[in-house]
Amino acid sequence: MTQPPDYCVCSLLKQTRVFPLPCVTGMLAEQFVADGPRLHLYDFEEKHWKYLHNWQHATMYLFFGLAAAVSLITHSTEAAPPALDRLMLGIAFFNEGFLFLYHLHGRSMLDVHVHQLLLYAVFGQALIAFLEVFHRGNIILELLRCTLTLLQGSWFWEIGFVLYPPSGPAWDLKDHSNMMFITMCYSWHLAFALLVAGVLYCTVSCVVRSRLKRTPPVEMGLLKTRERDAESEDEI
Amino acid sequence: MTQPPDYCVCSLLKQTRVFPLPCVTGMLAEQFVADGPRLHLYDFEEKHWKYLHNWQHATMYLFFGLAAAVSLITHSTEAAPPALDRLMLGIAFFNEGFLFLYHLHGRSMLDVHVHQLLLYAVFGQALIAFLEVFHRGNIILELLRCTLTLLQGSWFWEIGFVLYPPSGPAWDLKDHSNMMFITMCYSWHLAFALLVAGVLYCTVSCVVRSRLKRTPPVEMGLLKTRERDAESEDEI
Amino acid sequence: MTQPPDYCVCSLLKQTRVFPLPCVTGMLAEQFVADGPRLHLYDFEEKHWKYLHNWQHATMYLFFGLAAAVSLITHSTEAAPPALDRLMLGIAFFNEGFLFLYHLHGRSMLDVHVHQLLLYAVFGQALIAFLEVFHRGNIILELLRCTLTLLQGSWFWEIGFVLYPPSGPAWDLKDHSNMMFITMCYSWHLAFALLVAGVLYCTVSCVVRSRLKRTPPVEMGLLKTRERDAESEDEI
Amino acid sequence: MTQPPDYCVCSLLKQTRVFPLPCVTGMLAEQFVADGPRLHLYDFEEKHWKYLHNWQHATMYLFFGLAAAVSLITHSTEAAPPALDRLMLGIAFFNEGFLFLYHLHGRSMLDVHVHQLLLYAVFGQALIAFLEVFHRGNIILELLRCTLTLLQGSWFWEIGFVLYPPSGPAWDLKDHSNMMFITMCYSWHLAFALLVAGVLYCTVSCVVRSRLKRTPPVEMGLLKTRERDAESEDEI
Repeated sequence: MTQPPDYCVCSLLKQTRVFPLPCVTGMLAEQFVADGPRLHLYDFEEKHWKYLHNWQHATMYLFFGLAAAVSLITHSTEAAPPALDRLMLGIAFFNEGFLFLYHLHGRSMLDVHVHQLLLYAVFGQALIAFLEVFHRGNIILELLRCTLTLLQGSWFWEIGFVLYPPSGPAWDLKDHSNMMFITMCYSWHLAFALLVAGVLYCTVSCVVRSRLKRTPPVEMGLLKTRERDAESEDEI
Repeated sequence: MTQPPDYCVCSLLKQTRVFPLPCVTGMLAEQFVADGPRLHLYDFEEKHWKYLHNWQHATMYLFFGLAAAVSLITHSTEAAPPALDRLMLGIAFFNEGFLFLYHLHGRSMLDVHVHQLLLYAVFGQALIAFLEVFHRGNIILELLRCTLTLLQGSWFWEIGFVLYPPSGPAWDLKDHSNMMFITMCYSWHLAFALLVAGVLYCTVSCVVRSRLKRTPPVEMGLLKTRERDAESEDEI
Repeated sequence: MTQPPDYCVCSLLKQTRVFPLPCVTGMLAEQFVADGPRLHLYDFEEKHWKYLHNWQHATMYLFFGLAAAVSLITHSTEAAPPALDRLMLGIAFFNEGFLFLYHLHGRSMLDVHVHQLLLYAVFGQALIAFLEVFHRGNIILELLRCTLTLLQGSWFWEIGFVLYPPSGPAWDLKDHSNMMFITMCYSWHLAFALLVAGVLYCTVSCVVRSRLKRTPPVEMGLLKTRERDAESEDEI
Repeated sequence: MTQPPDYCVCSLLKQTRVFPLPCVTGMLAEQFVADGPRLHLYDFEEKHWKYLHNWQHATMYLFFGLAAAVSLITHSTEAAPPALDRLMLGIAFFNEGFLFLYHLHGRSMLDVHVHQLLLYAVFGQALIAFLEVFHRGNIILELLRCTLTLLQGSWFWEIGFVLYPPSGPAWDLKDHSNMMFITMCYSWHLAFALLVAGVLYCTVSCVVRSRLKRTPPVEMGLLKTRERDAESEDEI
């Protein structure tokens, strides 16, 4: 069956979502930016490690790249069991949290705290991706993972504003009331992420429903066939 | 089918149970009580945070309000998957425990201890609400959640009596034997909550059974139809 | 159908297994032994708590008594959901571990360590009893719970020998190599408990099988009926 | 039905995989190497424990030997429930991690750290083996367990190179940047183990598929019968 062009584009975009290209770009960028390691790791003259942070970031990208490659394989061929993409995603998030966890030695109190809060989102995503291995297609888990991804993103932004404030005075990194405010901030970010995920979910499901109603029966049969194709890609 | 008035009232009460109104009231009360923040959070003159506790309590109310709103939506419309209400309830309890967890810096030993004991109930509720996403309608989980809710309520009371004794001498907040007594007290509260939940369960199930037996067969058919309606509301 | 006497005795014994009598006896013994609290808890003259250990032990017995009472109710009536007995058993074990956990303040290193090792068995039992709520009748979980019960029992004995050696020199409670030896000892107790549980399982299943083979077909029909009764009691 | 010789050899090899012989050999080697304990454990003259490390290693071998024996029993007879082999494997890994956990007192920072990283793999294997009790035959869990086994093996090698470098200068066991490099190293070992497991999986599944295609239909019927036999051995 020849597939109509719009379906192909949609499918391509869907696969681009998981295409490992951004991860490879990220790894290269971490290595070859102006003051990057350029594949050097050990300073043999002064006998100590250099550029450890860049290498750690590149390692994180590496695992997300692996997860994307596996996702591409499971969706386009039948060589791998379909749940493997969620397992790799879970391992990639676990690895990210694992590297952040041992990243914090000797920093000031607030700096450690904002990174620890981040770990809630990261390990939460790892756990949910692992649960999805057994409960694939559970909409609740998908929404929760989406929410935690939004939370992680907005919290990275917040970390930037706290540690390197673009204007105004620097934060006192040892003040306890700052720490309590930041904790509350994290709850607000979570509420915001829940709201965004909820609005997105409602919009998408409304659009899909109204389309299904408008389509005449014959067209709808075709649509269903296409849907079944798209699904069969997911649930081989 | 036009529904008889008593069913409507029952359904209304059931929805009132989850109506977000109490949460909004709580948030407003926290903000506008006599010495409340009135939406102020930062004292720009003295450069420090003010009213952090009130804001934290308002944040807790906010999440329970969100959970109630989602519960209202999932029970009255078909826009959201039904398990979403348990997920939001779990997130609300998790958020409550999360804020309490970072709330305890620099307090005295017994004060920290009574709040830590509270966290067993709060995180327990979060875990059970999350399990209910997958095992919806499991009576054991419902009873356990009910028990932990009772435990949380009675323990808040106990905390009040320990930290601000209404009469008699204040507790020595650094005495270790006080701490051991309080731990045992928590077990007694748990036993009490189990007892109350058990008595409630027996009473309700006895009343329901005796009613079902007394009802003549024709009426019972109607009752069954209504029951099926009520259930279909829960398990779309 | 009138049940033959041997079945009744067997059923009675089975219920005696869970009869709350031993727990009540234990609670009374803890209260009224020679130097027991006799229901006193606070010394109003010297203003401190007395007999906290006896009261803690009585509280542990209380929860096991509750679990036994619930087990009796779920097995003999239809008033409660059958999985409730495992939930109560899990709560009883959790409560035991919880009280032990906050029991250890200010003791010497080895004393704390032997009690912490005990917690592995106790919380393990709580977890398994909770899993049995969802996987009732899973033979693997039953065997594991049986093993951990044996482990807990033999380890209590070991604790007695270490802390109050009946003869010979006392143990050095601060020596690190003692601690490492005790840890290894715990593994040996676990191996021993696994062995005992395995031998018991083989013996029982061999006896049951050889009996089933020896019984003539007619008798076997009766046996099956009885078995079905016994099972229906468990799996309503 | 008489089974063809190649099937028998294959089946024998499969059982040899789990044969407890290597474990017994390991235990004996730990006891009777040149400077081994030879079943001595306590030095009565100097009143302290001797050879604790050798005894701990022998205890680890003991549990893997038990797991292998149980696996042999469940695969060759019908005396035990089939999921018992995974439970015993989980207990063996748990016991290994448990002994390592209390093994680390008083060592230098990097030494403790490399052993703690090992525990991620060991406890991960224990958890996955326990999950396999409930989700037997899940290919994702099998692959993950295989990956963690590879990780554990390659990390033991790495530990050897770090603590006893065969050439060059010794590592500074108190340097924090060494610790961060080692953490990143662990991620690389994990990526390597994932890669090896992936390549193995692809190779095996390609070979099996190409064979199935080449076999003529009649032969294939026989193959299927054999397969069913092999499976029935696993899933009684």
